[in-house]
Amino acid sequence: MLLDRINKPGDIKSLSKEELTALAQEIREFLIEKVSVTGGHLASNLGVVELTIALHCSFDFPKDKVIWDVGHQSYTHKILTGRKEGFDSLREFGGISGFPKHNESPCDAFDTGHSSTSISAGLGIARGRDLKGEDFSVISVIGDGSLTGGIALEALNNASQIKTNFIIVLNDNNMSIAPNVGGLSNYLEGVRTADFYTRFKDKLADQLRSTKAGKQLLSTLVKTKNGIKQLLVPGMLFENLGITYLGPVDGHNINDMCRYFNDARKVKGPVIIHIVTKKGKGYEPAENHPEKFHGVGPFDPETGVSEGGGGLSWTKVFSRSLMVLAEDNPKITAITAAMPEGTGLSDFAAKYPDRYFDVGIAEQHGVTFAAGLASQGMIPVVAIYSSFLQRAYDQIIHDVCISKQHVIFAVDRAGLVGKDGETHQGMLDISYLTSIPNMTVMAPKNRWELTDMLSFAVAYDGPVAIRYPRGEACQDFERFRRPVVYGKGEYLFEEGDIALLAVGNMVASAANVRRYLKKLGYGCSLINMRFIKPFDEELVRDAARRHKLLVTFEENVGSGGFGEHVEHMLCQEALGTDIITFSLPDEFIEHGDVKTLRKELNLDDESMAVRIVTRFIGK
Amino acid sequence: MLLDRINKPGDIKSLSKEELTALAQEIREFLIEKVSVTGGHLASNLGVVELTIALHCSFDFPKDKVIWDVGHQSYTHKILTGRKEGFDSLREFGGISGFPKHNESPCDAFDTGHSSTSISAGLGIARGRDLKGEDFSVISVIGDGSLTGGIALEALNNASQIKTNFIIVLNDNNMSIAPNVGGLSNYLEGVRTADFYTRFKDKLADQLRSTKAGKQLLSTLVKTKNGIKQLLVPGMLFENLGITYLGPVDGHNINDMCRYFNDARKVKGPVIIHIVTKKGKGYEPAENHPEKFHGVGPFDPETGVSEGGGGLSWTKVFSRSLMVLAEDNPKITAITAAMPEGTGLSDFAAKYPDRYFDVGIAEQHGVTFAAGLASQGMIPVVAIYSSFLQRAYDQIIHDVCISKQHVIFAVDRAGLVGKDGETHQGMLDISYLTSIPNMTVMAPKNRWELTDMLSFAVAYDGPVAIRYPRGEACQDFERFRRPVVYGKGEYLFEEGDIALLAVGNMVASAANVRRYLKKLGYGCSLINMRFIKPFDEELVRDAARRHKLLVTFEENVGSGGFGEHVEHMLCQEALGTDIITFSLPDEFIEHGDVKTLRKELNLDDESMAVRIVTRFIGK
Repeated sequence: MLLDRINKPGDIKSLSKEELTALAQEIREFLIEKVSVTGGHLASNLGVVELTIALHCSFDFPKDKVIWDVGHQSYTHKILTGRKEGFDSLREFGGISGFPKHNESPCDAFDTGHSSTSISAGLGIARGRDLKGEDFSVISVIGDGSLTGGIALEALNNASQIKTNFIIVLNDNNMSIAPNVGGLSNYLEGVRTADFYTRFKDKLADQLRSTKAGKQLLSTLVKTKNGIKQLLVPGMLFENLGITYLGPVDGHNINDMCRYFNDARKVKGPVIIHIVTKKGKGYEPAENHPEKFHGVGPFDPETGVSEGGGGLSWTKVFSRSLMVLAEDNPKITAITAAMPEGTGLSDFAAKYPDRYFDVGIAEQHGVTFAAGLASQGMIPVVAIYSSFLQRAYDQIIHDVCISKQHVIFAVDRAGLVGKDGETHQGMLDISYLTSIPNMTVMAPKNRWELTDMLSFAVAYDGPVAIRYPRGEACQDFERFRRPVVYGKGEYLFEEGDIALLAVGNMVASAANVRRYLKKLGYGCSLINMRFIKPFDEELVRDAARRHKLLVTFEENVGSGGFGEHVEHMLCQEALGTDIITFSLPDEFIEHGDVKTLRKELNLDDESMAVRIVTRFIGK
Repeated sequence: MLLDRINKPGDIKSLSKEELTALAQEIREFLIEKVSVTGGHLASNLGVVELTIALHCSFDFPKDKVIWDVGHQSYTHKILTGRKEGFDSLREFGGISGFPKHNESPCDAFDTGHSSTSISAGLGIARGRDLKGEDFSVISVIGDGSLTGGIALEALNNASQIKTNFIIVLNDNNMSIAPNVGGLSNYLEGVRTADFYTRFKDKLADQLRSTKAGKQLLSTLVKTKNGIKQLLVPGMLFENLGITYLGPVDGHNINDMCRYFNDARKVKGPVIIHIVTKKGKGYEPAENHPEKFHGVGPFDPETGVSEGGGGLSWTKVFSRSLMVLAEDNPKITAITAAMPEGTGLSDFAAKYPDRYFDVGIAEQHGVTFAAGLASQGMIPVVAIYSSFLQRAYDQIIHDVCISKQHVIFAVDRAGLVGKDGETHQGMLDISYLTSIPNMTVMAPKNRWELTDMLSFAVAYDGPVAIRYPRGEACQDFERFRRPVVYGKGEYLFEEGDIALLAVGNMVASAANVRRYLKKLGYGCSLINMRFIKPFDEELVRDAARRHKLLVTFEENVGSGGFGEHVEHMLCQEALGTDIITFSLPDEFIEHGDVKTLRKELNLDDESMAVRIVTRFIGK
């Protein structure tokens, strides 16, 4: 095995050209074998095996710096930098991360997770290098999907201004997680498949060469720096922005890429190398269904079939509920930022193409676009994961909430998401959404409540968010299906001196805690808040008066969370009731399965019950 | 006066060509006269007088929809839509806003204030129109500066995908508030001044026409839809993105613009009209110093000289302190998002051009770029207003705080800003910054403390924000200049049963309240918190034990604010001390001078004192 000889950065440089090709094959097999067991990102990693090998042949890491945009395609890079043993515990608590982590290896120059940041970070690193008077290469590897994110475009615009040596590797596979959309994507498609264009260019050159004046003109054409160069340079869009363009290059030909990387190193100023790759390359199931093999659970490596698993997800409940509502209401429109499958909008997209908008990886634009739709009486449903919606924070404030537009936010992956780790935990949305005036925030206890809340949100008029977590939808409490009333929560159980106040998926946890306490001899009331903003003050006031201890449960940080809002009310009304607030700690939470993480954070049912009893007895 | 005949939308259509030119002159005089008294945005409004007139001649408002990007250039639009009487109370509390407001006139199709949102909103409106089966024009007017904002670029990318009739008016004055930077700006410069290019194009065409094969080629050139069209079309960058380009057009020639607007209406799909204007047009002081006349206070219309006013601002204190620190520390770098003057970085820019970065209107990129710099050991100081920093919320979390990069945020305009109103109030930064793990947040009581905090932040290692308001720096409490110690606050006065806990500029307000209470016979302690995160729990605990009532003061919404954090501690430690939290209400706060706004919100010194006494006696 060639892989046995690759144990630290630089080991790859001793391999011959033929061995590099064989190594690529070994890495593919390694990836499929490991990821089929642990789950993880597959299609994107299979697509960049040769690209990563070529980078490692051409540059010296960690001296040179590579920034992987989004970062889920960094597996081969991890293998080549001494971390292949880690793949048995990939994304497990305490194991290696599925994303670049500087604290895992100095070869991971900059941590990523969200899309489109790599050019900005790379420019900063390059300029820091200059100021320190050092000399190394900085390479940002960004997909054509990520390039549609606003921050990446801002950075492209700034790159020519910064005027420093800096390499952008455009990994063009014509996919985000889903197929790409938009003008840039169409443009790149044109560049990739520029047969007609190339032929025309040659003909024009021949024609000009046929006369003396034409020859002069041609020579001017070649030399000129401005728009006319378009004729000879396929990547004129980038050249127009002041960035040298090289390519397109076959992203599965290691030799070709190495040649381009060497050329790129010699370019003064920013340079973009356009590399064409295929997502899922070399593994048929992933080549055929790259979206399905974007992030996968364990699967059978022979067939690509997923290991069963998973009942009805919250996402699926959202998806189905939306389909029912959309049938009766032509005003309902749906918006995704390049994730139709993950957010549950695929069915809607198929049935209502006119009312469906995949705006690209562009959360900001998606939210303001929704506000525009709402201003015309449409009812846009914006489905974005909690941690990605962070990127549209200002648009939610400025374009939706100030003018009270009726935009519905379906905030998926709210709370702990598990194996994707720090960058993906949905742990801030209660804080950032409830602080915004005019915003309404709900969280359902179970699948039926999600359906009812979505229906309520459609009938409501104003900005409204529904947060729900990753994974299987709660199917408990079916008998508690009361109409959703604005700002009102509900008692599920009433007894004893302790009242448990829970939001969303934490209702089920609180119910477990309640059972636990009951066994210990403590009866508890259980309240499902339903509304986090505005929360049911009357209900909480009543609970505070009739119990000796209130306990709040939420999967969000404490700062600015539901618990603090309840404490504010208790303090302002001087109710004097004792209170415990369970929330996520004031720290970023690493990867690992959710159950393990909760245990580590003392947020498992038993730990919470023990803390409640201790406090209650202590009173 | 022609203006006397303009009292409602459409009145302008009865004017002859000559009268329109005269009207432009009258409007200029009107703007200078009014703004010289009230203050407001001037240079940008003088630049678009003819553009606005041409729009109103070519379209029917409010049936057609115009979205003014940023919106501070909408004064002429307000004059032409029946609001000219409002200009005597421009930006006063209860008077007309300096920005488009749908609730002021249906001719303001969409509210704006922050940059770069108009294309997204316009696309949404256009698509909403299609779905409703209606027929009207949608026009987004965006500056070349605003076009560098990520959301605008996301929207451009999406525009060709959406495939609906939609007009983008690119108001190209080569300025943001400051002169523009970046590749896009250079590109537009090339298009504007494309003499060489035009001559070359003609020569090429002549050459081709000289042979039969060449003629055929030329005809293909003209017909082709792809990149080759560059030769004949100046705005190829936009055409590459799938957007029809028209222009450039003289933005001070009403006839020319009307012609182009009529052409644009006939284009299927998105079209961009490139209009070249001059900021400050027609008023020499503003033409010569557009940055100074961007937003102005009252001035002498004859000379353009500002009416004195204003002592040493917080911004100036920041600016000077940074200059002193930068002299000794070559690692210090400074970043602005197109506002060197407003954020106080002009001096730094002049003295340390290598360490200064104007990234364009690109807050997201600026923050991640800073994180890149910090990863190389630089100490970037990111100076962005509180309400604009909202746009980089995810980058602060994802690129700065997760990896604990040493980035310093100089959060100017934190708290009430006054006359710019809803979109500009810095009322959320305590909430959104303190909820982020690893973030440190400080606020200075006076000018010396701002200096000391900046010095502390440079010596610290990790993400750190200093928030300070608009306006004159507090010069009180000079004798209380103790060293800044991490996480520690300070007693300014100790007496009585009431403890006032204040952050930043609210220390001065709390001191006034204290004096007021003293007259009424109530002694108060006064604590300057200095650190909002982490706040001094020991100090607050001690104060809670030694006083009967705690009172917190902050200029931020209550939800997720400092007061709630203190209440959380009181509750968790069951300290039982009574507490009042003064904060901004859970609503957007309109324009008006800060003193009036505070009075309206019952946050003036007297109202607060009365509320404290009432509560204290009530106990």
